[in-house]
Amino acid sequence: MRIALGIEYNGASFCGWQSQAGGCGVQDALEGALAAMAGHPVRVHAAGRTDTGVHALMQVVHFDTETSRPESAWVRGVNSALPPAVRVLWAQPVDEEFHARFCAEGRSYQYLLQVSPVAPAILAGRVGWFHRPLKLEPMCVAAKHLLGVHDFSAFRAAECQAKSPIKQLTRAEVSRHGEFVLFEFSANAFLHHMVRNLVGCLVYIGKGEYPPDWMLEVLKGRDRAQAAPTFSPEGLYLAGVHYDARWGLPDCHRSIPLFK
Amino acid sequence: MRIALGIEYNGASFCGWQSQAGGCGVQDALEGALAAMAGHPVRVHAAGRTDTGVHALMQVVHFDTETSRPESAWVRGVNSALPPAVRVLWAQPVDEEFHARFCAEGRSYQYLLQVSPVAPAILAGRVGWFHRPLKLEPMCVAAKHLLGVHDFSAFRAAECQAKSPIKQLTRAEVSRHGEFVLFEFSANAFLHHMVRNLVGCLVYIGKGEYPPDWMLEVLKGRDRAQAAPTFSPEGLYLAGVHYDARWGLPDCHRSIPLFK
Repeated sequence: MRIALGIEYNGASFCGWQSQAGGCGVQDALEGALAAMAGHPVRVHAAGRTDTGVHALMQVVHFDTETSRPESAWVRGVNSALPPAVRVLWAQPVDEEFHARFCAEGRSYQYLLQVSPVAPAILAGRVGWFHRPLKLEPMCVAAKHLLGVHDFSAFRAAECQAKSPIKQLTRAEVSRHGEFVLFEFSANAFLHHMVRNLVGCLVYIGKGEYPPDWMLEVLKGRDRAQAAPTFSPEGLYLAGVHYDARWGLPDCHRSIPLFK
Repeated sequence: MRIALGIEYNGASFCGWQSQAGGCGVQDALEGALAAMAGHPVRVHAAGRTDTGVHALMQVVHFDTETSRPESAWVRGVNSALPPAVRVLWAQPVDEEFHARFCAEGRSYQYLLQVSPVAPAILAGRVGWFHRPLKLEPMCVAAKHLLGVHDFSAFRAAECQAKSPIKQLTRAEVSRHGEFVLFEFSANAFLHHMVRNLVGCLVYIGKGEYPPDWMLEVLKGRDRAQAAPTFSPEGLYLAGVHYDARWGLPDCHRSIPLFK
């Protein structure tokens, strides 16, 4: 039987999604808790990998098991065996053809940036931080340049394993909420470090270092060296995964709760 | 010279505000960093003590020093010596008669409660959690019963050191924001555990265990044993301190960044 899970985790407690020899990946914690419930080793497949320090409001994974358990066991039972920084939000049996990664038609990320002279204490590790004022309007204009199908090589980490740098960005929005700026991106798929590199460039534009059209130049240049430095992982959240309705999954999108 | 500071801290990293032999209090961290800047031992006095796990969006303290430093040194310089879970927001020289505790005419607290079937992973330690739905309207009605001057003995911890249980509550509001409930209280002063005990009773009413008028009964009964259990510290924030304008302090109030 194949089972899909919706997962929330605090990336500050892990060395990223992916399983590591030392067991510090979110995947290691989840596979351990699922194995205890299933009574056999479990391998999970995720919609998207996240780096060290990056959070997930909604990661989607699947795994196979022959062990029959009520859905509540895969939620409440597994949660009782997980560290508090990872929670199973829902569990649902799915068709054997469903694959959390290969069936995902789109991903959404949010980036939460605190703009204040003094760094955050309470939200440290949950938000990015910038100490100088940012202008919203130029960032909004620049973000619109990114929409559509483009070669995003300028925003791609050297170690990126994607087959193609060409992705379709369907959402790129920037909004201000008090002393916070929220960045929202949706695409069919993202390159490694792509959101953090986009945020880095938008911050350069917001602080007035470059005009909004500089984003277009960087995009067309397809050269990572032209873009701004990669922004910190703390404010980055995997917010949702888009699947075709035929898989019958629950809602696979959530927003950073403080503003919606 | 007497200097006042506005302080933010994440209570999850400390055993409460007050200095402890082991040095685990917020006060210990702050006094250590201030002493390094001042070049002599420093004793700080705070507007209000907070328990283990309780946060401060705005704590106000004062200290005395003969060492002359620019205001930026008491902010940026001290922050560079503090653990990231404590930040100085502002520093201001004040009249020698100012006392952060004795001149405070009012305090404000906020309590942020996540209401969801599954416990929070990302906001663990920053919010309280309740797993069953709560009705807002009965909680709002019950909260209004608390306004005014009352003997709050029913909501007072056994170890409370306040001289009198009679306090004046000037604000008691409950509002819903998505899957969160926000409780806001202002009073001239609070008894030990008073906000957490009030939230405990409001949650009992919100889940339908008692009608709103039960709050009035508990209040009039002045018996701690009649009230609900003390709610968890994780969602509690000291949000502000009220001082007379003659002290010339900066704004001493901040809100949890929910729609604000």
